[in-house]
Amino acid sequence: MTTQPAIPWENRPEGSTEVMWRYSANPVIGRYHIPSSNSIFNSAVVPFEDGFAGVFRCDNKAVQMNIFAGFSKDGINWDINHEPIEMVAGNTKMIDSDYKYDPRVVFIEDRYWVTWCNGYHGPTIGIAYTFDFKTFHQCENAFLPFNRNGVLFPEKINGRYAMLSRPSDNGHTPFGDIYISYSPDMKYWGEHRCVMKVSPFENSAWQCTKIGAGSVPIKTEEGWLEFYHGVINTCNGFRYSMGAALLDLEDPSKVLYRTQPYLLAPAAPYELAGDVPNVVFPCAALNDGEKIAVYYGAADTVVGMAFGYQQEIIDFIKNNSL
Amino acid sequence: MTTQPAIPWENRPEGSTEVMWRYSANPVIGRYHIPSSNSIFNSAVVPFEDGFAGVFRCDNKAVQMNIFAGFSKDGINWDINHEPIEMVAGNTKMIDSDYKYDPRVVFIEDRYWVTWCNGYHGPTIGIAYTFDFKTFHQCENAFLPFNRNGVLFPEKINGRYAMLSRPSDNGHTPFGDIYISYSPDMKYWGEHRCVMKVSPFENSAWQCTKIGAGSVPIKTEEGWLEFYHGVINTCNGFRYSMGAALLDLEDPSKVLYRTQPYLLAPAAPYELAGDVPNVVFPCAALNDGEKIAVYYGAADTVVGMAFGYQQEIIDFIKNNSL
Amino acid sequence: MTTQPAIPWENRPEGSTEVMWRYSANPVIGRYHIPSSNSIFNSAVVPFEDGFAGVFRCDNKAVQMNIFAGFSKDGINWDINHEPIEMVAGNTKMIDSDYKYDPRVVFIEDRYWVTWCNGYHGPTIGIAYTFDFKTFHQCENAFLPFNRNGVLFPEKINGRYAMLSRPSDNGHTPFGDIYISYSPDMKYWGEHRCVMKVSPFENSAWQCTKIGAGSVPIKTEEGWLEFYHGVINTCNGFRYSMGAALLDLEDPSKVLYRTQPYLLAPAAPYELAGDVPNVVFPCAALNDGEKIAVYYGAADTVVGMAFGYQQEIIDFIKNNSL
Amino acid sequence: MTTQPAIPWENRPEGSTEVMWRYSANPVIGRYHIPSSNSIFNSAVVPFEDGFAGVFRCDNKAVQMNIFAGFSKDGINWDINHEPIEMVAGNTKMIDSDYKYDPRVVFIEDRYWVTWCNGYHGPTIGIAYTFDFKTFHQCENAFLPFNRNGVLFPEKINGRYAMLSRPSDNGHTPFGDIYISYSPDMKYWGEHRCVMKVSPFENSAWQCTKIGAGSVPIKTEEGWLEFYHGVINTCNGFRYSMGAALLDLEDPSKVLYRTQPYLLAPAAPYELAGDVPNVVFPCAALNDGEKIAVYYGAADTVVGMAFGYQQEIIDFIKNNSL
Amino acid sequence: MTTQPAIPWENRPEGSTEVMWRYSANPVIGRYHIPSSNSIFNSAVVPFEDGFAGVFRCDNKAVQMNIFAGFSKDGINWDINHEPIEMVAGNTKMIDSDYKYDPRVVFIEDRYWVTWCNGYHGPTIGIAYTFDFKTFHQCENAFLPFNRNGVLFPEKINGRYAMLSRPSDNGHTPFGDIYISYSPDMKYWGEHRCVMKVSPFENSAWQCTKIGAGSVPIKTEEGWLEFYHGVINTCNGFRYSMGAALLDLEDPSKVLYRTQPYLLAPAAPYELAGDVPNVVFPCAALNDGEKIAVYYGAADTVVGMAFGYQQEIIDFIKNNSL
Amino acid sequence: MTTQPAIPWENRPEGSTEVMWRYSANPVIGRYHIPSSNSIFNSAVVPFEDGFAGVFRCDNKAVQMNIFAGFSKDGINWDINHEPIEMVAGNTKMIDSDYKYDPRVVFIEDRYWVTWCNGYHGPTIGIAYTFDFKTFHQCENAFLPFNRNGVLFPEKINGRYAMLSRPSDNGHTPFGDIYISYSPDMKYWGEHRCVMKVSPFENSAWQCTKIGAGSVPIKTEEGWLEFYHGVINTCNGFRYSMGAALLDLEDPSKVLYRTQPYLLAPAAPYELAGDVPNVVFPCAALNDGEKIAVYYGAADTVVGMAFGYQQEIIDFIKNNSL
Repeated sequence: MTTQPAIPWENRPEGSTEVMWRYSANPVIGRYHIPSSNSIFNSAVVPFEDGFAGVFRCDNKAVQMNIFAGFSKDGINWDINHEPIEMVAGNTKMIDSDYKYDPRVVFIEDRYWVTWCNGYHGPTIGIAYTFDFKTFHQCENAFLPFNRNGVLFPEKINGRYAMLSRPSDNGHTPFGDIYISYSPDMKYWGEHRCVMKVSPFENSAWQCTKIGAGSVPIKTEEGWLEFYHGVINTCNGFRYSMGAALLDLEDPSKVLYRTQPYLLAPAAPYELAGDVPNVVFPCAALNDGEKIAVYYGAADTVVGMAFGYQQEIIDFIKNNSL
Repeated sequence: MTTQPAIPWENRPEGSTEVMWRYSANPVIGRYHIPSSNSIFNSAVVPFEDGFAGVFRCDNKAVQMNIFAGFSKDGINWDINHEPIEMVAGNTKMIDSDYKYDPRVVFIEDRYWVTWCNGYHGPTIGIAYTFDFKTFHQCENAFLPFNRNGVLFPEKINGRYAMLSRPSDNGHTPFGDIYISYSPDMKYWGEHRCVMKVSPFENSAWQCTKIGAGSVPIKTEEGWLEFYHGVINTCNGFRYSMGAALLDLEDPSKVLYRTQPYLLAPAAPYELAGDVPNVVFPCAALNDGEKIAVYYGAADTVVGMAFGYQQEIIDFIKNNSL
Repeated sequence: MTTQPAIPWENRPEGSTEVMWRYSANPVIGRYHIPSSNSIFNSAVVPFEDGFAGVFRCDNKAVQMNIFAGFSKDGINWDINHEPIEMVAGNTKMIDSDYKYDPRVVFIEDRYWVTWCNGYHGPTIGIAYTFDFKTFHQCENAFLPFNRNGVLFPEKINGRYAMLSRPSDNGHTPFGDIYISYSPDMKYWGEHRCVMKVSPFENSAWQCTKIGAGSVPIKTEEGWLEFYHGVINTCNGFRYSMGAALLDLEDPSKVLYRTQPYLLAPAAPYELAGDVPNVVFPCAALNDGEKIAVYYGAADTVVGMAFGYQQEIIDFIKNNSL
Repeated sequence: MTTQPAIPWENRPEGSTEVMWRYSANPVIGRYHIPSSNSIFNSAVVPFEDGFAGVFRCDNKAVQMNIFAGFSKDGINWDINHEPIEMVAGNTKMIDSDYKYDPRVVFIEDRYWVTWCNGYHGPTIGIAYTFDFKTFHQCENAFLPFNRNGVLFPEKINGRYAMLSRPSDNGHTPFGDIYISYSPDMKYWGEHRCVMKVSPFENSAWQCTKIGAGSVPIKTEEGWLEFYHGVINTCNGFRYSMGAALLDLEDPSKVLYRTQPYLLAPAAPYELAGDVPNVVFPCAALNDGEKIAVYYGAADTVVGMAFGYQQEIIDFIKNNSL
Repeated sequence: MTTQPAIPWENRPEGSTEVMWRYSANPVIGRYHIPSSNSIFNSAVVPFEDGFAGVFRCDNKAVQMNIFAGFSKDGINWDINHEPIEMVAGNTKMIDSDYKYDPRVVFIEDRYWVTWCNGYHGPTIGIAYTFDFKTFHQCENAFLPFNRNGVLFPEKINGRYAMLSRPSDNGHTPFGDIYISYSPDMKYWGEHRCVMKVSPFENSAWQCTKIGAGSVPIKTEEGWLEFYHGVINTCNGFRYSMGAALLDLEDPSKVLYRTQPYLLAPAAPYELAGDVPNVVFPCAALNDGEKIAVYYGAADTVVGMAFGYQQEIIDFIKNNSL
Repeated sequence: MTTQPAIPWENRPEGSTEVMWRYSANPVIGRYHIPSSNSIFNSAVVPFEDGFAGVFRCDNKAVQMNIFAGFSKDGINWDINHEPIEMVAGNTKMIDSDYKYDPRVVFIEDRYWVTWCNGYHGPTIGIAYTFDFKTFHQCENAFLPFNRNGVLFPEKINGRYAMLSRPSDNGHTPFGDIYISYSPDMKYWGEHRCVMKVSPFENSAWQCTKIGAGSVPIKTEEGWLEFYHGVINTCNGFRYSMGAALLDLEDPSKVLYRTQPYLLAPAAPYELAGDVPNVVFPCAALNDGEKIAVYYGAADTVVGMAFGYQQEIIDFIKNNSL
């Protein structure tokens, strides 16, 4: 990995007391950003070379879900490939993939790992690695269906890879909690533990229906900082918001703190209307040790960004914990 | 009760033929009106001292539902307390309350009564009284769960307190009609009668799925004037609109007239988009004998106002009755 | 009330270790016991004069639900009227009743009170009194819909009538807990408290879906002994079993003990097959201070009896409490 | 039929590569276009005399669904009658009609035929003819309930009238495919064949839940050109988009080509928000052999138009076929 | 048609007051009556030559549904072919048939007509004719899907064939009413009219969920005598019972009388248990002008018979009409 | 493993042509076989020492699900422990287990492995090993929830343990297919492949809703012989039947043959009625190379046995393959 470029940033708006605030030029990526796209959202970025690389969910105009590589110097202006990622065989022979969506990306040791929701007789967690965002090596799916929101930790824990995921069912998923699993080799997975569950309605309703891991966890002195989404089922559909948690560094199945209030919830026009109204769905967070820039899908249609100071966010989580 | 202040008002827009029209500065109360709020809506106001007082539903950013007192000189600019109402024991020892929402307020004889949807093993009708909007005395819940939209009449009828309510189930309530119940003492309730039911789809579809009482009934020569909400279940969710009915003065379980067309339905941007799109939900109506100002929740997110002339509204109800 | 006749009884079968055992001549009342009946079940009996009287749910061959008076010298051989009970006005003018089912009967002070599930815009609790099981005086419904399984205590508690009930919804009721309410006059009801809720699936699955009061509570030194039904929702439908609880004598909203195992569950052929398979539904219990005879509906088709010794039952409840 | 007037038209926007593009002055008909209307959408137009006539779905403010005649010189500015169409008896005595919605209009041989979704114990296909858009003669319903989206071909095929329709159920219809039926006399219908079914989710998700015929098929050298709607069921409700198909001229039950990508999907504000968010629903297409103007309902609230060149559309269908 | 043989018969049991009574040797056809069968039920018989012929629903052990011809001298002992009916083309080229079930048979003018539930992209009404029960000529399906229980009248009415049917949806059909349609030629059908609908729950609950025509109507002086099934949805599933109606001879869309009580409901062991418990489903009725023998499917597993006197049945319908 | 005792056996009944036939003394284990049990079913047995050992699902009278060890000399008369199995830590520290049900048992190399449905925040596959059926060592759960019917192969395949399972959801599971997963160490699992899916309704309806592995696969020259259950969802609930498949010896994710007809379906009284009517659910098969004895749960209430000749069964599968 080369020297990290400056992450995208915009100061807190005058007069705002928000812990995290939206980028004023949101959405950073529009629904028709590439010619074939119906919508681009729920996408992940990482520092790469002297800028940034990303893996983007671009649903095309047949509303087929696939993931595309993209590149940017500043994390804001993106060149996204017009063709989806073509996989080559990784640690197994190629397996079926009816669709791919909601990617995450993380650098571990010597390469970039991509995880996504992979269509193999239903949704499960696909895994691939790349060194250059040109050639991607597809590995064994991590789990049996039905699973979504697989997010790898950025380093091995006790010598094993670690992944958060959200087992659920084969439909529109009216339930789901966050689990952790470990692997010695990115091929066989086990030691599954429940990490955190939905909140009782009375305590924190925005996360009472289902929750799922969002960004790759950020290692801080106070624990793994994880941005996640929570969902409430209103009488007119699901509403997705963003919160954050601190997980124990040694045993990340232990939740140290977790936001009772949300950090970001649908309120901007591009979050309230779109293919799926009322969605804020974080999939990546850039950080430089001080500042954090979160990329999130909005209304299942576009990509937005939100900013915050790492320490303020950590303090907020600790002071407003469920 | 002191001399009633002038109610908020704005004349009918040039060229409009609407019986009721929106306030041009809607929403009068925004979603972030107090620091903790995610949304403020479905709230009730009454004349109080030389201005107005109100009880407001402010869901906080954990999306917990609670009610807050507020005060205004003109009914438009509101100071809402930053802390929710703390109850003291009224006619019983304190009972559990998992949540509070959708308050109504009414002055009867010597005090203000607040009713709301109270979380006691599910939603039921909570009751409290106050003399000053500072100290609130919580009484016995009126009913067993599951009930919502409890609205008291502003005076006793045949010597007993009277309450409209909408019994239903414990979920998102795909059904519900309006009933009336009586109490000699605000503690024990009985003589339950069905007042009005949903309309057949063919007759008036906006009120074919569920209906519920809205404002405190206004006593007029032609009957109790009651603004209520009606709901249609479209293929993309519930749509809440506002109609009105005239109930018999002596026996308010008898419906004299009831609007076949709605009086107000979601069409403004703040009604079409928000936490729950397509909601107009009246909870209070100020009147001075000539003019009426209705407060309604919009999109479960903000508070709006609509105006009309009492006699025109009554004539409309009678001329367009279901 | 005259001297109590001997309750029906049969000793525990040879070799049985059951706390409660079935009557060997079950069903005691068959589905075609009266000419019009499709099924007779969920019925209640009390000592009356020198024998017993009862109120029976007899669904006719149009499958209309109604209640019928009946009489017996021995509690086993019953003369059930061929015409349903005709009500006269009690403490109110006559109210609608679309249907009547699942009666209970209790003697309080000077008369017999009947409660049942009364169809008034949905199910709620009907109340009537009689002195002679010939003339029945119908009173106000206790509650707003939707409610079932209203069971009166056999004496006033702290000067007020007390009733258990199970508020729920308007359909096949996939949920429901037991509440208590009080009335000074059998007309207005209040002070509603939750008494006992369904059990977590892991603890006692037979009562994890819904529960409802069954027999009139029996006053014992160790508390009010209440037989109730519990329901599990299997992949092929509801299964109704019988358990029992001891409620505090002074404050019956307090559960002292409650059976974790059931006392009786569907296993006999007439419980496993019928109009609704797999139902054991107690509605009455005769006792003489030593022995207890429970009447229960079986498969929503016939009436069965089960026997047990009061002290053994109490010991079982205390030793196997949830 | 008189000489066809020029169809409404607007050139492709500068820089656009879209096959079909929206009219810049959309919506062409607003929700309150006539005094009684709550919404006007899903409506059909045809050339008539020296201009155009149409049949419009105008839901009134009681949200009753009915169809209204209207006239226009240019296809853009419409005079819609303030009273709904009154039918007289056609080929049968008058039959019940609880409601009428989603009309289509077509000229065959000597008269204009209107089909619509007719409420006869549920939705089915109503049929009427008119010579002048003043007197409408109602004929026998084409089918038993439950059916919607009945669309006639503009000429007889092998001597029989031909109709596309979408049999389904009596509710919000979570499924439905397109069938064709034939009639010798517009009274008796038979020879029902399945024409096209929903797409597998993986192939073309925007049309994976239900599809229905839209415009009257346009006869071209390459087949019948049919604009249809397709629906995906997202976690927050149905989303309706528009595609097109080419059907065999001789045997229109044979699909020659059918768009895998949509031609138009909800993205404009008046399509994303309204009474039913996220709906684009074509009901008519004017064409002059070169250009095509499609009329579509938007958000079940207003009428929009979209334009395209016939040959480009045909090429697109053939080059992007499912 | 040859001279009609004596219909099967057994006198009313001693002491019985039932209008219709079961055959004492029920079931007349067991589930394994042919080697391949898993169950044989919902089948139809007619007089044929010097005995009887029938068309039987035999689900095989793969639980595939098909129809088989069979023959009997006495209507009780049946030889059912071991291979299902193979169709040849009738008034159209052969159409798909994914499955066939619930046949009815009727003689009209010169041939026997078979109708059944035919799998053509969902259930609809298949039609075939035969002269000899060896060669069957399959005609056009009568209707678009989704439809079941198509039953032809035994003669033309006003010069057209007439068919009862039950349009519904594509699943387990929780709703459905009886309609009539007419055809000049057994190919095109129209003039659809609603004949009778489910009963309100309070009036006759056994037929409150769905109803469907059963036997071929019997022409009597008092109208067409039609045995039909009605269904109630209990908390543990559907229960199918049998009633009867008298339809107007001239206009059979008019119901003259219809039983409020059922005539036969599941009570025998072979009706209470089987592949689908609690089903009595009539599909045929033999009559000799005085006596009637009904064939009905029991528990979707076997065939039973019930008997009655025609005049008594007619009197019962008239005296117990809904 | 000691010399295998003679498996239980009973010859085919006189005149029967069934491939597999029931034991005439079924059920072999009744519902009250141990004092605490409500029901005993879905249980597994293996040869052990000079007789047999088993692990039994005994739901107690609180309807808590747990597994119990048992022993038998002849496989028919069983001594089942009165206390459930107490686990000690295996290859991990002890993990939660809310409930245990539907065990399978298999001998691999040097020990007996038990798999079962383990309650860890929902159902997943628990694993334990034992040498003596006295001490059981609980290992890591194989998978994340939600999974059932985990069945190990009796030997390693290509050096890894292999397990069939049925991923699904957290409820009554209206869907589910059979997958295979591999593990190098009984701790980490991967290389998940879909083995076989439900059948289309038209082809083999008894297995069209869900399927799950039953017995431990039997190694034969023609492939792994696997008895499995298939389910159809009738209008009155699920019906579970038994079929069998032959899987490729080298790559058992390949299905060689699979029965289109069932081998055993609910028809005996103890299969048609019980806690869950209409269930035949195989969990174990003893074989001696010639004869096979299958143990199956009946009606979720008791244990039954069925017999067959191995070669006949294999021939049947091959000759009646889906």
